[in-house]
Amino acid sequence: MASAPEQFEGFMINSSEKWSDFTKEKFTPKVFEESDVDIESECCGVCGSDVHTITGGWGDLAVTPICVGHEIIGKVLRVGSNVKGIKPGDRVGVGAQVQSCMKCPQCKSDNENYCPHMVDTYGAPYNIGGADSGKPMKDKNGKQIWAQGGYSSHARVHEQFVFPIPDNLPSHEAAPMMCAGLTTYSPLVRAGTGPGKKVAIVGIGGLGHFALLWAKGLGAEVWALSHTPGKKEEALKLGADHFVSTKDKDWAKPLAFTFNFILNCADMTNEFDLKTYMSTLAVNGTFHNVGLPDKPLPQMMAQDFTSNGSSIGGSHIGSKKEALAMLKLASEKGLHPMIEQIDISEAGCKKAVEKVKKNDVRYRVTLVGFQKAFHTK
Amino acid sequence: MASAPEQFEGFMINSSEKWSDFTKEKFTPKVFEESDVDIESECCGVCGSDVHTITGGWGDLAVTPICVGHEIIGKVLRVGSNVKGIKPGDRVGVGAQVQSCMKCPQCKSDNENYCPHMVDTYGAPYNIGGADSGKPMKDKNGKQIWAQGGYSSHARVHEQFVFPIPDNLPSHEAAPMMCAGLTTYSPLVRAGTGPGKKVAIVGIGGLGHFALLWAKGLGAEVWALSHTPGKKEEALKLGADHFVSTKDKDWAKPLAFTFNFILNCADMTNEFDLKTYMSTLAVNGTFHNVGLPDKPLPQMMAQDFTSNGSSIGGSHIGSKKEALAMLKLASEKGLHPMIEQIDISEAGCKKAVEKVKKNDVRYRVTLVGFQKAFHTK
Repeated sequence: MASAPEQFEGFMINSSEKWSDFTKEKFTPKVFEESDVDIESECCGVCGSDVHTITGGWGDLAVTPICVGHEIIGKVLRVGSNVKGIKPGDRVGVGAQVQSCMKCPQCKSDNENYCPHMVDTYGAPYNIGGADSGKPMKDKNGKQIWAQGGYSSHARVHEQFVFPIPDNLPSHEAAPMMCAGLTTYSPLVRAGTGPGKKVAIVGIGGLGHFALLWAKGLGAEVWALSHTPGKKEEALKLGADHFVSTKDKDWAKPLAFTFNFILNCADMTNEFDLKTYMSTLAVNGTFHNVGLPDKPLPQMMAQDFTSNGSSIGGSHIGSKKEALAMLKLASEKGLHPMIEQIDISEAGCKKAVEKVKKNDVRYRVTLVGFQKAFHTK
Repeated sequence: MASAPEQFEGFMINSSEKWSDFTKEKFTPKVFEESDVDIESECCGVCGSDVHTITGGWGDLAVTPICVGHEIIGKVLRVGSNVKGIKPGDRVGVGAQVQSCMKCPQCKSDNENYCPHMVDTYGAPYNIGGADSGKPMKDKNGKQIWAQGGYSSHARVHEQFVFPIPDNLPSHEAAPMMCAGLTTYSPLVRAGTGPGKKVAIVGIGGLGHFALLWAKGLGAEVWALSHTPGKKEEALKLGADHFVSTKDKDWAKPLAFTFNFILNCADMTNEFDLKTYMSTLAVNGTFHNVGLPDKPLPQMMAQDFTSNGSSIGGSHIGSKKEALAMLKLASEKGLHPMIEQIDISEAGCKKAVEKVKKNDVRYRVTLVGFQKAFHTK
């Protein structure tokens, strides 16, 4: 069995002041445990979360240097003795979570993405002997080992968070499905999206363009709501039945009481006139956030929910069960996201995160060329 | 057929500065239309909404003088030619809504409580020829006719908003079911409250004590959450399986990921640590508001919903279908609210609203003695 090296290598950030200055450095991966899968990485998507993290938008960096990236596709090198259903040579993906306790009510009900002991793919400390052991995992010098992300040579991940990729999905398209895809797919299916339902996708970017693919693929009638009228043609191509420019005056009026579900993929919700969006919900509809602004949501009155019995909520990625269903849907329906590819390198990572920060991506970047950067000596 | 007088009589408020100074005055009811039911009132519950309205907490008074009250029980005097299923002599109830358009998708799907043309029981202007006609209903002097509430001799209400009362429910107990009862029953049933579900009721007052009756009656496991430890015994008697004092430090910790549904009946939510309450929700649970504070809710981050995929929402009373189901549940299970009775008069109305304003009611006041005050000449 091929094995991963003792140290992995990644493009890393040392401070949020210099959030786009990547340097290639070695790091110590988690200790291999018997439910783990070692992966030789082939490519990695660039997520808005990566940028919120390295810029400090979501708070100070938990560890430095930090390697971000949580949309990883690669080839399995080895599996622990407890691993079932994944074998060396398989092409697999890893998203924004790499571990959970596997014991709590959430883990036991296909809600491991809500485990209170969850370990994020980067910037989270590992415990030894399970996510809830309370015993910090240390390297041979006694230093805490942290999860490091996918702008890197290899990944070592608990099997629950490793998803086999259907053969007909190209790796650079499957990569962003691991986070952006699953983050939008899970709330759509939990809201019962399907034939007869009216669904609005707000914010046609990295998340939103996946949401259009899924909502249409699941059979709903789909509206794209965007403040960029120039995205109309692409939105319709991706799956929207209707396009609404939220720059138009009174755009919401003809849509009163329309949507069973609004999936808000924008991350500037703090600047929204939320009441206007809420007015377009059908009775008992939900305005659901997956875009996570750095700033608080606009303040609301309890009364703002009463004219249609609406609610506002959010979610965190999705479960393995949902990830597998999403990949099956994409594979069977031939759903293709729009992806820009950039070769990974210090300059490539810089270019990628700066493009995402500027919202200058249609609609997602995947870092590729990992073979040349890491695996060819 | 007995008929209602040309003018009705009620205990009315002239300004929110003098919000407890009631005077007995005559007012002109709506023009009788063929879907209307005339009712000789027997009693009327006192709702928190009455106090929020007359004090100006929810905004300036829409009309003066105003007669509040929207928990009316009385005897049918006459019915219009379009009325089916209600006849003179029936004992009936009226809640917080008296009209809707009967044509929109909401009205046609048992969601008439979300009709955009709804007419509230008091403080709303009538149109002639239907709630959505756009033609103001005027009296013989050409003055707009406004809906006036139930601290009054009679009510004239569209049949959709008139609910027959089962024989075994005492009128003074049925009265507060018309608003407080329905307002709590509707969201509980829409959330699927029943066996196997864990439900928390926050705020054990007029609304909350009904919520305990219904949640238990529907078969859920029920928690009462209150900042008044002295309410424990009564809460358990009403139907709570568990009582939690939210004054206790760290009260929420053992309840993490517990509740499928929290029904917030408190109207001081602006002072709540909402994140703490949200942390007690099970995955995809909802914190649902029926108490409506005068002030905005605490500001939230989209991130506050992500640890359990939760949401926060609200609702507005309920439908006729739900009102009838609630009355059937109360009748069949022998559910009894705790009601204080006060004889209606200028002094009685003053005493009642001042008690409600001070939260000095266990748990609801019904104004009674209408026969003596209005119908004995």
